[in-house]
Amino acid sequence: MAEHVDIVEVGPRDGFQGIGPFIPTERKIDFLRRLYATGLRRIEIGSIVSPAALPQLADTPDLLAACADLPGIVPQILVPTEKHGLKALQAGSDFLAFVLSVSESHNRNNVRRAPMDSAAEYGRLCAAMPEGADMRLNIATAFDCPFDGRVAEDDVIALLDVLVPMRPGAEVCLCDTTGRAAPDHVMSLFRRAMARYPQVTRWALHAHDTYGLGLANVHAAWLCGIRVFDASFAGLGGCPFAPGATGNVATEDLVWMFDRMGVHSGIDLGALVPVACDGAVIPGGLSGGRVRAALTAKG
Amino acid sequence: MAEHVDIVEVGPRDGFQGIGPFIPTERKIDFLRRLYATGLRRIEIGSIVSPAALPQLADTPDLLAACADLPGIVPQILVPTEKHGLKALQAGSDFLAFVLSVSESHNRNNVRRAPMDSAAEYGRLCAAMPEGADMRLNIATAFDCPFDGRVAEDDVIALLDVLVPMRPGAEVCLCDTTGRAAPDHVMSLFRRAMARYPQVTRWALHAHDTYGLGLANVHAAWLCGIRVFDASFAGLGGCPFAPGATGNVATEDLVWMFDRMGVHSGIDLGALVPVACDGAVIPGGLSGGRVRAALTAKG
Repeated sequence: MAEHVDIVEVGPRDGFQGIGPFIPTERKIDFLRRLYATGLRRIEIGSIVSPAALPQLADTPDLLAACADLPGIVPQILVPTEKHGLKALQAGSDFLAFVLSVSESHNRNNVRRAPMDSAAEYGRLCAAMPEGADMRLNIATAFDCPFDGRVAEDDVIALLDVLVPMRPGAEVCLCDTTGRAAPDHVMSLFRRAMARYPQVTRWALHAHDTYGLGLANVHAAWLCGIRVFDASFAGLGGCPFAPGATGNVATEDLVWMFDRMGVHSGIDLGALVPVACDGAVIPGGLSGGRVRAALTAKG
Repeated sequence: MAEHVDIVEVGPRDGFQGIGPFIPTERKIDFLRRLYATGLRRIEIGSIVSPAALPQLADTPDLLAACADLPGIVPQILVPTEKHGLKALQAGSDFLAFVLSVSESHNRNNVRRAPMDSAAEYGRLCAAMPEGADMRLNIATAFDCPFDGRVAEDDVIALLDVLVPMRPGAEVCLCDTTGRAAPDHVMSLFRRAMARYPQVTRWALHAHDTYGLGLANVHAAWLCGIRVFDASFAGLGGCPFAPGATGNVATEDLVWMFDRMGVHSGIDLGALVPVACDGAVIPGGLSGGRVRAALTAKG
């Protein structure tokens, strides 16, 4: 029987959040429906944060409401604090992705808190989660920090030592925030963490492709046994203020690779490519990835 | 002591060959000198073929002559037949790269011969090699053929069974001609071939990045013990007739990855990036790679 991989589409959150011109809510819902129609089921539809910080994501509750028409969809919502997590639960979310950074400067830049303060908030949020709701823990700057450079594995482990026992059932996602992790680093950290926390049964990688290492890192993590990967259609997620600094690994590139490996993702590449082509031309967006261009050039 | 990787710069051959407008010889020699100055030593400077087939490479003997000023350079010349190999030797080359395809349709398309006929030519050329000259054997379509799709491992092995004994000291390079090899395929074929031919001590991978898998495949091969990789500065090597179908994995992306892994390539990335930026704007060329854009956007 073919092996299976879970691809989490984060385009509507990580892909859209840096785009300046507001994408009309109906357009977002249309993308959501078309992504769903390709077979994608886990989709990070947005974030509950201060609308002043991320105005693009202010309509996340509308996207959540639209999910009612999409049977089997697992919409996850990113939250960076306890307060926003509680708000997301009130809005009806039952799958939160709590994000905090290993790097103190990055965490302070994002939420003006030390990582250990964010960890305490995560603990309180876990305690407040209703029965049946699910949690993913996003460890940002797990490999490298835009301010401080390479992050020591010991620092990641020290933070996980605090976080994991708060909710051992949570999915733990190591995030290569800058795209500067190399595959040997990915393998080394996953192997160490997986050996240390056997109680964690769901691990994930959030890879960026800024330096072209997205698929290399995904494959490296795959070799370690990782079976959940974040990706963004059209590779959306670049920073509009750094031209050429493309962002998330492209969903269609991941699907292509796993298709070629005979690994089942449940996603129809032929259906996904047109959606990705439309995503690549969203005004203000920065796209990435290779497969879209290669397939459409030859099609 | 840090591990070492050998990066073979194939831009002046594989990168330039598909470019329509003739690049003036002096400009090619300037690129050659600048690539050498970054620390690159193994450089595929061109090909001896029919000038009618590849007019862009008609000045390869001039590039070979220019190497006399570059101490320690190892210029290799690609040859597709015995006749062209003998010509290259006469022109003073002491490092040939003989290419043939596993796929019959691809080999016939390239040289109008069956693979076994090309193998016989390789054998005669090996016998004619002078003392001290070196040979690399390029196995094109080792994973996938543009005409026939996936190439069976058994077919590669059957061809190598004939070729390897002809010159066990030759470096054997498996070429992902279409860029459609996935990393599991790369690992599987290298492991099988390396186990079967212990007498071959130098293996190499020629990766293309058309579908974004270039670095993933290089890292996969690295894990198998491969320590020689082809790459093209600026990722040159796309087919001008298939827009978006970018070509060779970019040298600067490879250097970036190995730098991040702490693996010594002897190549100065800071010196290479400006050369790659100039390569990317050669009229008629198609560039690829990520690192160039990422580093210059932030620089």
